[in-house]
Amino acid sequence: MSSMKKLKKTCYEANMEIPARNLAIYTFGNVSVYDRDEKIFAIKPSGVDYSELKAEDIVLVDLEGNVIEGSMRPSSDTMTHVVLYKAFPQLGGIVHTHSTYAVAWAQAKRAVPLYGTTHADHLAGDIPVTKVMSDDMIKGNYEEQTGYQILEALKEQNLSVDEVQMILVASHGPFTWGTNAEKAVYNAAVLEELCRMALFTEQVNPEGGRMKQALIDKHYQRKHGKDAYYGQS
Amino acid sequence: MSSMKKLKKTCYEANMEIPARNLAIYTFGNVSVYDRDEKIFAIKPSGVDYSELKAEDIVLVDLEGNVIEGSMRPSSDTMTHVVLYKAFPQLGGIVHTHSTYAVAWAQAKRAVPLYGTTHADHLAGDIPVTKVMSDDMIKGNYEEQTGYQILEALKEQNLSVDEVQMILVASHGPFTWGTNAEKAVYNAAVLEELCRMALFTEQVNPEGGRMKQALIDKHYQRKHGKDAYYGQS
Amino acid sequence: MSSMKKLKKTCYEANMEIPARNLAIYTFGNVSVYDRDEKIFAIKPSGVDYSELKAEDIVLVDLEGNVIEGSMRPSSDTMTHVVLYKAFPQLGGIVHTHSTYAVAWAQAKRAVPLYGTTHADHLAGDIPVTKVMSDDMIKGNYEEQTGYQILEALKEQNLSVDEVQMILVASHGPFTWGTNAEKAVYNAAVLEELCRMALFTEQVNPEGGRMKQALIDKHYQRKHGKDAYYGQS
Amino acid sequence: MSSMKKLKKTCYEANMEIPARNLAIYTFGNVSVYDRDEKIFAIKPSGVDYSELKAEDIVLVDLEGNVIEGSMRPSSDTMTHVVLYKAFPQLGGIVHTHSTYAVAWAQAKRAVPLYGTTHADHLAGDIPVTKVMSDDMIKGNYEEQTGYQILEALKEQNLSVDEVQMILVASHGPFTWGTNAEKAVYNAAVLEELCRMALFTEQVNPEGGRMKQALIDKHYQRKHGKDAYYGQS
Repeated sequence: MSSMKKLKKTCYEANMEIPARNLAIYTFGNVSVYDRDEKIFAIKPSGVDYSELKAEDIVLVDLEGNVIEGSMRPSSDTMTHVVLYKAFPQLGGIVHTHSTYAVAWAQAKRAVPLYGTTHADHLAGDIPVTKVMSDDMIKGNYEEQTGYQILEALKEQNLSVDEVQMILVASHGPFTWGTNAEKAVYNAAVLEELCRMALFTEQVNPEGGRMKQALIDKHYQRKHGKDAYYGQS
Repeated sequence: MSSMKKLKKTCYEANMEIPARNLAIYTFGNVSVYDRDEKIFAIKPSGVDYSELKAEDIVLVDLEGNVIEGSMRPSSDTMTHVVLYKAFPQLGGIVHTHSTYAVAWAQAKRAVPLYGTTHADHLAGDIPVTKVMSDDMIKGNYEEQTGYQILEALKEQNLSVDEVQMILVASHGPFTWGTNAEKAVYNAAVLEELCRMALFTEQVNPEGGRMKQALIDKHYQRKHGKDAYYGQS
Repeated sequence: MSSMKKLKKTCYEANMEIPARNLAIYTFGNVSVYDRDEKIFAIKPSGVDYSELKAEDIVLVDLEGNVIEGSMRPSSDTMTHVVLYKAFPQLGGIVHTHSTYAVAWAQAKRAVPLYGTTHADHLAGDIPVTKVMSDDMIKGNYEEQTGYQILEALKEQNLSVDEVQMILVASHGPFTWGTNAEKAVYNAAVLEELCRMALFTEQVNPEGGRMKQALIDKHYQRKHGKDAYYGQS
Repeated sequence: MSSMKKLKKTCYEANMEIPARNLAIYTFGNVSVYDRDEKIFAIKPSGVDYSELKAEDIVLVDLEGNVIEGSMRPSSDTMTHVVLYKAFPQLGGIVHTHSTYAVAWAQAKRAVPLYGTTHADHLAGDIPVTKVMSDDMIKGNYEEQTGYQILEALKEQNLSVDEVQMILVASHGPFTWGTNAEKAVYNAAVLEELCRMALFTEQVNPEGGRMKQALIDKHYQRKHGKDAYYGQS
């Protein structure tokens, strides 16, 4: 199989995880997979129902947003992916979903507080939320500006995309990423679960309080630190 | 296949999406499909469990509410469909469900605030709710009056059925529509999801506030405006 | 098939609807089916997991609570069923589940307010809750007393088992019934759905208010009144 | 089949119940099975996705935490299991999940109040929660200290592991156990359900109040007392 055909297949399979894990209905959401060497990414076509999506429908796009291969129009969010891959070439996959609880936190414009070890196993701070997009940005190329909105939030909050692999775009929904598409989808599913857990935690005890810092550090380090011992090496 | 047989088959398949998408249990809800040329619509028979429904059970009804074909009694809500098709002949399908979260908002008698882009992708304002039906209307032909209740709400709130394809009937539940049955069912599933997201948004942050107008316009226009670029053209 | 074998088969199939409709996990809950002529009912054996239940495990019991046929011990709630069949021989089936939302209302010791038409299609008032069982009753035959607790609630609230086919036992959970086992299971599933809808309704709008009386009457009558026109006659 | 091969198979099957019952996603959680005679337990390997787990991947570990058999690294929580089996050799299985509602209560740092009979059928008091781990303990062998954190909570609250087979570790999540792995998994699923019911109960009625003591005793005794009559003897 050619490397471009493989890229499309990987992208197709990663997209099909979105409905399989109940992270979006119908046509909502999209996954892209980046080929660092070719500086090309594969992405879901716009407005196609997951139940009808085929591997050959996947569109190949370069870092200017030009369609390189494919007969369909790429996801309307394509320029957001372009901005992120340009800024962070170490990424191998990006996922945008409309998963219910992540959208709720995004719409509520709140960062998700770090309440427990499930969260700390994945990132060592709150799940960030961007600012609401300014009117000027909305008047520009909206999807490109969504990328800049994410870059700005990461910069202002001093976050590394290697350590924080998920963000909530205010009034909109979640974007996640990873060194490959599988990890980016994993982060999308984990984010949804963390958002559910955090809401229910506040409902059980509005005064519960965050997890203590020593425990945050311990959990994050055991999975991601230089002496990590979680998983198979 | 005759056009009437096709109409029944389309109606059957659209009805079967209701339990498949968890929009109602047992016999609740109904989908109709309208044939503009014949001025006839196909609709689910009354009180038949989805698990036992067959394509040949679908009933054909004219715009006076007379059964044209079928051995079973049509849905008890048939007159509501009649009123809507008469008022809006551009509709191709109407759906009534008892989906849990849409019913909750209908019972709470609140319009669903526009909190985010998932909502704005589908309509540019709040999801409307009708007034509670007056005692006089209840004493009349109840199901016909439900149709008038919807017409009245659309008129008083100055809404177009082409732009707003979903409404909550107070103390009752959701009605959705579209240019064909598939789109009407899609709107029913989207409505349920928007109702879930809106409730959870308020639970995460009661002071979250609506989405800003510029963003509402942008999202609605990119999908439905004259220069829409979402989906495949 | 002998009538007793049929009774067991019907009872087995009705019990299997409990896990299929997510109304209880593992061994929780039980369904019985009553044979009015023989004054015998079939009931689930005690503590058997639904995933292992077989039709031949079903136990036959008379109205004194004696096992007539079956090698297993009948449900620990058998005496509750005995009391109800004795008091209301018109019943054909009784269901007890531990469905999540119905249990929540039972534990909260609140009747479920009539908020909408989904509810009014099934009963014309609130879903009743019993009083908490008195210490004296607990010291007696507990399961028999649970039956009396239900009888007392129905009597004090002046409710007919023909019209109100569901009740919440305080601090415990739901019991439903019907003229046959299939209807009793249907009522258990509907009750769970009404309990979900009512909680979410209050979360959407704590001041929403009940459905107006004229609408309650209309909906209940169109389905259950002497001129009912819902369903197939 | 050798007894060690059987132990691994039992452990594999018990682990596969975790995703089947929606008690964790991806690699979260772990089940161990203890062989009292050999003083060896089988446990899930660390970081392996349930969808890829095979019986031969299961790791055998002794009560010092040494790997006896298996090519993979055992669960990062292995030392927690070691501490518990050492303290309570009567246990046959231990389960750790990240089930959503149990995690919510653990993160909220609240014991789950005994609100009804579903709960009392399984334990006669609140579901306990540990204290937050002290900074000193976190600096030690973290997973071993998690075991001591559980031991300390049981001791301070004067609880027997034979009667109370579930606990919430503060800011973390649930641990359950039983005389065999199947019962430990059963307790994990029941715990999740009790946590859901308790949250919804408080949402329906914040002033609902606990179940009365006489009823607690009755339900616990009928299932676990010396004259228990629930289930098949």
